[in-house]
This record gives sequence, structure tokens and C-alpha cells, in this order.
Amino acid sequence: MAGSTFGNLINIMTWGESHGNGMGVVVVGCPAGIELNETDIQKYLNRRKPGQSRFTTARAESDRVEILSGVFEGKTTGTPISMVVMNYDQRSRDYSEIASYYRPGHADYTFDQKFGFRDYRGGGRSSGRETIARVAAGAIASKILNQMGISITAYTKSIGPVSIDTFDPEQIENNQVRMPDAIAAEKAIAYLEECMKKQDSSGGVIACRVTGVPAGLGNPALEKLDANLAKAIFSIGAVKSFEIGSGKNAASSTGSQNNDPIRMLEGNVTFDTNNAGGILGGISNGDTIYMEAGFKPTPSISSEQKTVTRGGENIHISIKGRHDPVIVPRAVVVVECMTALVLVDALLENMAARLDRIVDFYNPEKR
Amino acid sequence: MAGSTFGNLINIMTWGESHGNGMGVVVVGCPAGIELNETDIQKYLNRRKPGQSRFTTARAESDRVEILSGVFEGKTTGTPISMVVMNYDQRSRDYSEIASYYRPGHADYTFDQKFGFRDYRGGGRSSGRETIARVAAGAIASKILNQMGISITAYTKSIGPVSIDTFDPEQIENNQVRMPDAIAAEKAIAYLEECMKKQDSSGGVIACRVTGVPAGLGNPALEKLDANLAKAIFSIGAVKSFEIGSGKNAASSTGSQNNDPIRMLEGNVTFDTNNAGGILGGISNGDTIYMEAGFKPTPSISSEQKTVTRGGENIHISIKGRHDPVIVPRAVVVVECMTALVLVDALLENMAARLDRIVDFYNPEKR
Amino acid sequence: MAGSTFGNLINIMTWGESHGNGMGVVVVGCPAGIELNETDIQKYLNRRKPGQSRFTTARAESDRVEILSGVFEGKTTGTPISMVVMNYDQRSRDYSEIASYYRPGHADYTFDQKFGFRDYRGGGRSSGRETIARVAAGAIASKILNQMGISITAYTKSIGPVSIDTFDPEQIENNQVRMPDAIAAEKAIAYLEECMKKQDSSGGVIACRVTGVPAGLGNPALEKLDANLAKAIFSIGAVKSFEIGSGKNAASSTGSQNNDPIRMLEGNVTFDTNNAGGILGGISNGDTIYMEAGFKPTPSISSEQKTVTRGGENIHISIKGRHDPVIVPRAVVVVECMTALVLVDALLENMAARLDRIVDFYNPEKR
Amino acid sequence: MAGSTFGNLINIMTWGESHGNGMGVVVVGCPAGIELNETDIQKYLNRRKPGQSRFTTARAESDRVEILSGVFEGKTTGTPISMVVMNYDQRSRDYSEIASYYRPGHADYTFDQKFGFRDYRGGGRSSGRETIARVAAGAIASKILNQMGISITAYTKSIGPVSIDTFDPEQIENNQVRMPDAIAAEKAIAYLEECMKKQDSSGGVIACRVTGVPAGLGNPALEKLDANLAKAIFSIGAVKSFEIGSGKNAASSTGSQNNDPIRMLEGNVTFDTNNAGGILGGISNGDTIYMEAGFKPTPSISSEQKTVTRGGENIHISIKGRHDPVIVPRAVVVVECMTALVLVDALLENMAARLDRIVDFYNPEKR
Repeated sequence: MAGSTFGNLINIMTWGESHGNGMGVVVVGCPAGIELNETDIQKYLNRRKPGQSRFTTARAESDRVEILSGVFEGKTTGTPISMVVMNYDQRSRDYSEIASYYRPGHADYTFDQKFGFRDYRGGGRSSGRETIARVAAGAIASKILNQMGISITAYTKSIGPVSIDTFDPEQIENNQVRMPDAIAAEKAIAYLEECMKKQDSSGGVIACRVTGVPAGLGNPALEKLDANLAKAIFSIGAVKSFEIGSGKNAASSTGSQNNDPIRMLEGNVTFDTNNAGGILGGISNGDTIYMEAGFKPTPSISSEQKTVTRGGENIHISIKGRHDPVIVPRAVVVVECMTALVLVDALLENMAARLDRIVDFYNPEKR
Repeated sequence: MAGSTFGNLINIMTWGESHGNGMGVVVVGCPAGIELNETDIQKYLNRRKPGQSRFTTARAESDRVEILSGVFEGKTTGTPISMVVMNYDQRSRDYSEIASYYRPGHADYTFDQKFGFRDYRGGGRSSGRETIARVAAGAIASKILNQMGISITAYTKSIGPVSIDTFDPEQIENNQVRMPDAIAAEKAIAYLEECMKKQDSSGGVIACRVTGVPAGLGNPALEKLDANLAKAIFSIGAVKSFEIGSGKNAASSTGSQNNDPIRMLEGNVTFDTNNAGGILGGISNGDTIYMEAGFKPTPSISSEQKTVTRGGENIHISIKGRHDPVIVPRAVVVVECMTALVLVDALLENMAARLDRIVDFYNPEKR
Repeated sequence: MAGSTFGNLINIMTWGESHGNGMGVVVVGCPAGIELNETDIQKYLNRRKPGQSRFTTARAESDRVEILSGVFEGKTTGTPISMVVMNYDQRSRDYSEIASYYRPGHADYTFDQKFGFRDYRGGGRSSGRETIARVAAGAIASKILNQMGISITAYTKSIGPVSIDTFDPEQIENNQVRMPDAIAAEKAIAYLEECMKKQDSSGGVIACRVTGVPAGLGNPALEKLDANLAKAIFSIGAVKSFEIGSGKNAASSTGSQNNDPIRMLEGNVTFDTNNAGGILGGISNGDTIYMEAGFKPTPSISSEQKTVTRGGENIHISIKGRHDPVIVPRAVVVVECMTALVLVDALLENMAARLDRIVDFYNPEKR
Repeated sequence: MAGSTFGNLINIMTWGESHGNGMGVVVVGCPAGIELNETDIQKYLNRRKPGQSRFTTARAESDRVEILSGVFEGKTTGTPISMVVMNYDQRSRDYSEIASYYRPGHADYTFDQKFGFRDYRGGGRSSGRETIARVAAGAIASKILNQMGISITAYTKSIGPVSIDTFDPEQIENNQVRMPDAIAAEKAIAYLEECMKKQDSSGGVIACRVTGVPAGLGNPALEKLDANLAKAIFSIGAVKSFEIGSGKNAASSTGSQNNDPIRMLEGNVTFDTNNAGGILGGISNGDTIYMEAGFKPTPSISSEQKTVTRGGENIHISIKGRHDPVIVPRAVVVVECMTALVLVDALLENMAARLDRIVDFYNPEKR
């Protein structure tokens, strides 16, 4: 479908522009009976929202979510859930300059090429604000997963040249860059301050671990679980790389290094290593799903850049306003939420995999 | 959908198991009027088939494609195109051993977990032979692209620790590892021979360049062109990483390094560099699409490995038979074909992007 | 997908409950460049809204549509269009009675069976108010069709035993029952008054004519244009029959009667009769598309009915409040709108049917 | 998708032309563990195949199905099932005449308009032979339904002016016209003989009853169960009307007549009448699903007809060869099979409706 839907059994449709009336999402196919209120969603949105640290834009967005449908007496009804975050901070400023040229690293040029014109206010549809809608939907998906003992933890693995050395999940929400390593976080913060001084920005890597996933989710061939995760993560703006398990390192290793030996442990099949990243042949193997996504640096920088006007004239620009020097810390929750949506879809789809379980499900005597 | 379909306007469904009756594909939504015969398809299949070099399995597969429908008097009719490659080499051998345990790095365990049992003959549905179907479909997609001046070139960028230093497209089909660099190819061949001596295997990286793509393909938000490419490539077995443009390097670079300056050149918008990899905000920018996929080493190795039986017993195995020490050279054409399918879909979808062009298309006076 | 989406290239997702916060729709894949404002939508909604005559509920719904996204400077941008009609008339009344039993002819029982409970306020998701969302989306589709000379006219063909004898399109909006026959309209009105006196309701038939459709829309086999129209119309609540062209009469006729002779007329292929209803083999033939949909009587009637409580007790009920004695006149615009959505989708999809036209479309010299 | 796919969780793709190499289908998403062999499929195909009576074409088609994938050791594996019926009776005859003009009532003209040319041999893709593929797929769906106590019975309700008066299911396969009423069958046979003498053909009505369907299948709003059935049945060539329950009669009845009173019977919710046809608000209510489809007369008749040539010349034609004077008896099994596919999809989709059941399904202690 053309552009703004995702998922099969649980399916979302997002809408909204950065400086339009609001950002929203409709979630179709959400199971009935989930206890849900705005607070459940807001918790996730608050991790994404600007103004959390000095590395996020100062825009005073309240980003308050409203649930408009699909919940009755505190529970999801099985019908579409519509959620909206209205934009209250649409300062009417002068966009004529930004409308007149193409910002490097942004979708300005490609949007014009596709649609003939564009909503140039703050990036329009291509703004990072679009991820609000995904986070709202993903918060519901995460709630479903939690009920089943599945837990998703994403975090900043690196910013520019600074990588983590340790993994302490308690640290993630304790520093401005969402690193599970307090020392690396300090270094990353110092690096970002340097970037800001140079009117520059930085990229980074987000890692994501999912535990408690039952074996059997996904499919062989064209609908592999990792293929759907790859699409989900690559649909987040600024992502330039995606890896599962040993990732790109697998390409330079040997079979004897990369194969995960299988052992019985307390009656369960286990893997000595997890180069597979929890997925074999497109199907979850019960181990932790591990993946990494590389994000490019924020393209909006105030140092001078070469570009062209819509009229085809070479110019030099310097982008005004304050922008996040790195988007990675705010994108952590977006990675979690897109992952959650893929996993819930795979969980629901997998219920149809075996005749015996289907017959069992509909057996009136087992209800 | 559940597992074996791909694409929206041009849509494929693949079927078949390694040692079943054959492998096949149905292509729905292929435009009418394409000149097409078996030779067009066979050319692509021959690049994938085994027995091309001493690094591919000796299995004497003829891999002859038959077109069963959708072509009349040498042209596609607009109706579904069914293609099949029958398996003539299904030696009835004893699979009881392989049926009894789970091969590390393979889908044996996950298949059993999902479906309750599996076709254990040669990997069944999870065999690399499944890509025959994709290549057959992608050969048609490539023919469409060629008519529009779009050209896809994939090649081996690295094998194990050996990477290319130069890019000479003429070299790609001139060496056994499909490297565009004759000297690197020799080193890679030496490395693979070493691997084989050690009863081991190697991973590698495939790069892919697409030229001639018009600006405007893809969508903002959830159906980004790069997201669909990511899914397409990650749906190929053994892929562990996917990158676009500057890829993972973007994560450690700065905005001033990674943004591609825009300039007018002979009346056209051009980019001084191509860190974007030809896609901005999910939409093609008219530049070369550049991407890389990392493949893990062939999991079937004859050196000893730890695993468990279906019954839950720890054992040591040594996989018999001859297997490719690296799958990368044969996967080059698979990467091209999956890319072609995504691009044709995006080309068709993009025709609906602007009202003026739709009105124009249906204007009887312009026919 | 699970329940609330429709269409492929232009795709809608509806949400909302009768007495929730509002009813809404997101339209994805709408081409860029359509001049659009709230008035364009409101015109259609006004034909659906209650309170138009003494045969529609008195509920003082203003049904004001707001466009929340996808339009910039008066034109669609190609991105999702979110529209909402807030519910301002959610009188907090006592629903405990209606919550306790299953109304005959309604979805109360089936909803409980599927989801375990239901939003019982005014029918919840199963209310006719849900069609607000379809009308809002269909208004946009109709605007696209109008630009291409395609015109859709639906009207009431019969109410209870009263059928039209003449077809004067000018009359349709001139009477309370939307019949293109003033005399039949009077009879229908008299019949409805009788129904109301008896605390009863009536069914009726809506006919729909579409002119200006180019030949070639739709597909052979599983995605026939008439099959998609059948689904679209049957997805409107209360529809119990759907017919194309000669409809059910075809079943009792002979081939020599039912085949439409083909003739050349002023250089064009024409059909002497239109038993096909404008569609042959699933593809439009350029003639008027003609179809009929039969609607059941409003199930909410105040005369006594037998039913059961949620607890499984036999009771007699009499449904309070005022309800439309017939839904047909208000459903006329819903039929038009669902038809418009199917046709726009078919128009967009058909652009990909022929290689020569695709090549032409992308030929830079023809732009 | 563009034309030849159907279903969401269980999804089919059909291919083939009347006089091409064969007709086939791929079934994706079929659950693992169904005992399946060619005989299961052949039973259904035999009810569709020609040569069963003097009212079906004499073409000596053996219509033997082969299963090419997805079954291992007698059971479905969960992977795509590819089935093919090769065409062994492609007599090379002269099609130049039929290629030169448009047969009334056929898709010849519309096919040319859409695709620019057509496979004119025996109707090509628009031939009734395409339903072979649906029957093969539906046979599997029927097997799944049988395992769950769901039973589908379709039959001829009327041929031309001759309707059944009684319903004796034992009779259906006992007469050439598949009527559940031996006396009506004789009258219908006499009527058809008359038609043949007049070089004419007849339409007819197929009714279909489904028992054992659990309440809860389908969805409110856009994906109503009846809407999906309407599409499925209307995708069969020659269908001109579709009705559920009281069908078109509902339009002329009153609410007090058409509402089905609800009563408790032996602890179960039951309906005194079944005007709903087993579906309320788009969701199954546990009662028998009842529907009717009206088929137009076979368009190929040997009496003289007016038409035009591809070149635009008015001519008179008389279609040679022998054709079924009525397609209804052979279409009975097609109606059953399309119904089965819709119901299996709805059964699988409904498993995801409630959180409590999903949690239960994945609870390892309940496995």
C-alpha cells in the first residue's frame, strides 16, 4: 500500500505533518480486552519528546496523546484505536526561505520530485515528529508483549566515535544519551558538546534486545521475521544500516565461528552463542533477538552548506533554529515501538501455523 | 500475508522445496506487452545455478525454467506468469540422520518449533534453492527496468577478510567469486581454498548499484523505498546486515561529512557525494542507489559441531556432502533480482502520485 | 487486514463509535494536487446526516468535518489525509438496559461473541454513524473522478413495496426519500408514515449509475471490478443483496436475451443493451456501470420483540427512542462514496497494465 | 493486489489460460499438519470437470491435479502448496476467426481495451477453466473446515424459470443439474433441452448453506464476513447477483418481519428465523450461513448475434463448437470452494480477536 500503513493482522496507519494540526495513528486489529488509557501511551511518548536534555530541541511541545476510539470502560474493544497528538506549538513564522531551496540530507528535493510540491513547514510529513504516531501505536503493542513475558530494551550503543563498553540496563534512562554505560555516556556528552560548538551534528547506533520471544515466530522465504524487522527499523528516518546477531561481522567470519552450537540445558534447547540474533531461517529460535541500527547525523546543521534553489540556482545556506545535534537518544523508543509492532503481528500470525492448535482453539470443550 | 508473497502492484508468490518436485513462482500484476521467453529467464538462473566453479556444489542441476502461463505469442499478456524449475536431481538417499537432529545455523530447529515437523530433505523450504523462484521473477522485473534505462549491477565486495580495492564491472563475470577486481578475486579464491581445507566456510559482502532510477520513487513514512529494499534483501537467507549509501559509517560521522552537497550541473540537480545512497526521506533522488548486504558463512561445514537431537540429546555432528564454502558469488544475482522487484513495484506505484499525471494518462486525446 | 481498511492504492482506514469521541478516517495514497477543503467533504456529509426529514432521527448532530492532515495551501500533498467528525451530542443517558440484552437484527450478540464485550452505547462501532467516515473519504474519491469526467448517481429505487416508474435525476434531491420519480416518492412517503404508525420500519433498494468510466478498469479472475464493488457495497451495514446489470433477472433469462449486441456507433464500440451493467469478465467495458443494493428494514423498532439477555434469559423488549423508519435515503450517498473509492483504486491500478504506457509515462521527453 | 490473489492469512494465487500449458494455484498460509493427497483435491475437481452430463462440454479433459509442493509424508508442512492441472487437450485449431472479433457477453473486448491484446484461444485467462485453480485451493480449505465440524452444501436452486420446491440434499449429486429436488431437476433438464434446440442457453441460481460456523467470525465495518463472501462469489465469472439470508426480499419487508427473534434453546442462543443468513453486523451469529448467487446464461450460443471486429466493422456471428447450455451445475462446487476459502481465512483471523485467548494460546503450561 501507498506509504503510511504497516502490519498485517495488527495494522497501523499514521498521519500528520510537523506543523499541521497534529500527528496521529489508527491501530486496526488490536485484540479486545487490553487495559489501556492515555497514561500507558504517554509514558512512551515522554521518552521521545523534545526538551528532555540540552541535546534535544527546545520546542515546548507538550505532546499530549488523546485516545479517540476503540477503548470502552478502560479496555480495548477490538475495534480501531485512533490516537492523536495535537500540535499546539505551530508558531506562524516565515517559511519562505526554507520553501525556496532544498536542504541537504533532507527529503525536500525528493518530495518535490514525487508530488510536485511540498508542505515545507518544519519538514512536513518527513519530519521526525511523524514517529510520534509510531510510538503511540507501539506503546499498545508493547503492552500486549508484556502480558506474554516479552520484553524489549533498546539503547544507544554509540554516538559518533564513542561506543559503550559495558551493558547496565539500569543506566539507560539515567543519562541524557540513553547509554547503558555511565562512563561512555559522559564521553558521548562531551563529544556532542564539541559537535555543537562546531555547528555540526553526530550519528550513532541503537541496539535492541528482545527477551522472552517464543520460538516459531516468522516465516521461511519472503516473510522472514528479520526481513520484517529490517523494514520496520529502516522505515525510521535517518537509519542507514541494520544488523541482526553478529551482523556485518558475520561476513568476515567463518562457519565454525559463526554457527551457534546447540545444547540441552535443563530440558530446553539452548544456544551457546547468539550470532543468529535469535532468528534462524526467518523464524525466532527462542533466544534473545539482538539487532542494531545505524543512524546518520542530524542533517540540519548551522554551518554553511552548498545547495540549490527550487528555481535551479546554486546557493550557500546556513540552517537557522536549534536542532538536536543527534537524534539517537530520542529514537531509542521509536526502535522499541517498531520492534513491538512487528513482534505482535508475528505472534498473531503464528497462531494459524498448525492445524492441531487451530482445532484446539475452536474446541468448545476447551473454552 | 503469511510467508511467501512479495510486492504490491507486481506481486510474487514462490513455492517449492529443495528436494520436492520443483521450485516455482507466480508473478501477478506484470504489465502486458513485455517480450519474454525462457531464455530471458534462463540467463539469470544460470548465474545462480550450482556447478559454475569449484566453490559451488557439484549437484548436476540443469535448472531449466519453463513458463507455464501469462505469455502469448512471445509477449506477456498482463495475466499471472507461472514459472517452474523442476527438480530432476532428487537422489533418493538416506535422510534419517539429518532428520534426527538440528543442524547449527540452519532453520531445522525453528521449523520444527513453528510447524511441528519439517521436510528435512536438503533443507526443504529453507534451502537456498528457494531463491530460484525469486531469480525467475526478478529476471522479468529486470527486463522492465532495462526498457526504462534502469540498470542494476551487484557484485561481491568482500569474502572473509578479502575486500575489493577497485571497481571494474567488466571483471565481475570473469572470475569465480564475481569480484569487480581481478587481484582481490585471486586473493579471495586462495582464502576460500584455505577454508575448504579446514572444512570451514566463509561469509562475504555483496554490493549493489542501480543507475537510471528516476527521482520520486518510494514514499515518506512507513513505505520508504529503502525500507522495502531492506526487507527484500533481508528476506534472502543468510543476510545479516543491510546498508544504504554511507551505511554504518554514517553513525560515526558528522552532519557536515555525511550531508551530500547539492549542485546544478548542466541544468540538472546533482549531488557532490552520495552518502544518501540515492534515497532521501524514503524517496529516490535520481542518484545511483547504492547498498550493501552482509552474508553469513555457509552453515553446513564438515568440521565437528555440537548440537542436539530432536529427542533432546546432546551430540556431535559432522555434516556430510559437498557444500559451497561461500554462498556470496551465487547470491549476487539474487540481490539484483530482489532489487529489481522492489523497483518495478515502486515505479508502478509512483504513477499514482500526482493528479495532473493521472488525468493526463487517461486523457483520450493524448493516447 | 483485520476489519477497518479498504482499498489498495488508495486505501482508507475508518475509526470511531456512535457515542465515542468522534468518527474519523485516514485516506492513504490519495494523489497530490487535488484542490480540497472542508466544504468539499461537508456537501457529501450533509446528504448523509440525520435530521434532514421526518424520516431521519432527530439527533441534532452537526456532523462537521475537520481535515487534520494531508492538505497544504488548499491542495492535497500526497500524504495521508486525516478527517474527523467529532461527536458533540453524546448525551450521557442510561444505557444499562440496552447493555443487558441483545437487540434482534443488530450486531449486539455477534460483537459479544467475537470480542467478549461491547461498547453498547448506541451500537458502538456497528452503528450506521460509521458510514460518516466512508462518506468523508468517498467525497475525495468523487472529486478525483469528477476531474476525469466520471459521474456517479445513486438513488432510491424502491421503499418497501413502492418502486419508481420513471428516472428523472433532477427529482432525487427534491424529495425526502431520494427517488428520481416524484409520484413514487409520494407513495413511498405515505407508506413510511404507515410503517411509523405501526411502530415498524421498511427496507428498500438503492440503484447506482456510473457514467464516463473508461474501458479497461478491473481485472480478470479474482480481482474483478464487480467483485470489488460487491464487497464495497456489502460492507455497508444492512445490505442483503447486490446486483450488477440485469442482476438476478439474468438467472432466469437466456443467452440470446442477456447478451448485449455490440455495434459501431460513430467510430466507437457500443452495446445495444446493458445487461452486463458496464462490466464484462471483471473489466469495465466503457458503458454505464449499473448496480442495485437491497437494504433490510431498520432493525430498531418500538413494537414488541422477543430476545434474550446477556445472562441467557428470554425476555420481550420494545426499543425506545426515535429511529429512522428506513435507512435507504441516507444511505444513497454512502453507496456513491463506496463506489467512488473502488473506481479510483481501479483507475490507479490500471495505469500499470501495459508496458508501453508505463514507458511513455516515465519518458522524460513527454513530460 | 493486481488481479489474481485472494485472502489474507490463507492466501491463494491462481494462474493459467484455457488453452495454455495448464491451470494452477499456489496456496500460501495453509496450516501445517493437514493430511492431504491428490485424491482429496481430485474429488472436488471431478464435480467441476466437463463431460459429466449432456449439458457439459464434450472436451475430454482429464483434469488431473498434481501437488508440486507443501506436502511431506502425506501432511501439509505449512509452506506454500503448489497445484497444477496440465492442459492435455490443447488441440491446435484455427483461432483466427475468434481472434478477429469480440464475442458478446465475453471479456474479449474488455481484455483488449485493458491489455492491448489478448490470448484468444478459448477465452484465455477469462475462461471458466480458471475456476479449476479455485476448486483445488478450496478443496484444502474444505478439509480444514471439516475438521472443525463446518460443512458447506451448495446446490442448484433454479435454472431459467424452473425452481426447486423441496430440499433433499441426497438428491443433489443424483441428477445432472445438481438440484436437491428430483422433480424440479427433471423439469430443468427438459427446459435445457429446449434451450439447446433453440441454439440458446440458460442462467440459474446457486444456493449455499454452511452449518457449524462458530459465532464471531468476520468484522464490523469494512471487512464484514458477508462483504468478503460477496467478493468471493462475485469473483466467479457470470455471477450477476448475490444475496444473504432474506436477500433482496428484505428490501420489501418490514422490520417486524425481517428481524430474527432470539430465544434460549437448551442453554444456547438461537434464532427463530434466519433472515440474517447467519451473519449480523458483519459477524457470524452461529446460525446457518445462507446465500444465493445468480448466474447469467452461457454467453457462447450458436444462434446468430451482432458484434464488431477488432478493426471496427459491424458483423453477424454464430459461435461454433459445443458449449454448456448452462454453467450452473458445474459452478456449484466453485461456490462451495470460494466460500470455504473465505471461512478459513475468517477462522484464522478471528484467533487474534481477544487478548485473553492469545495469552492462553501462548501459555506454555497449556501446551
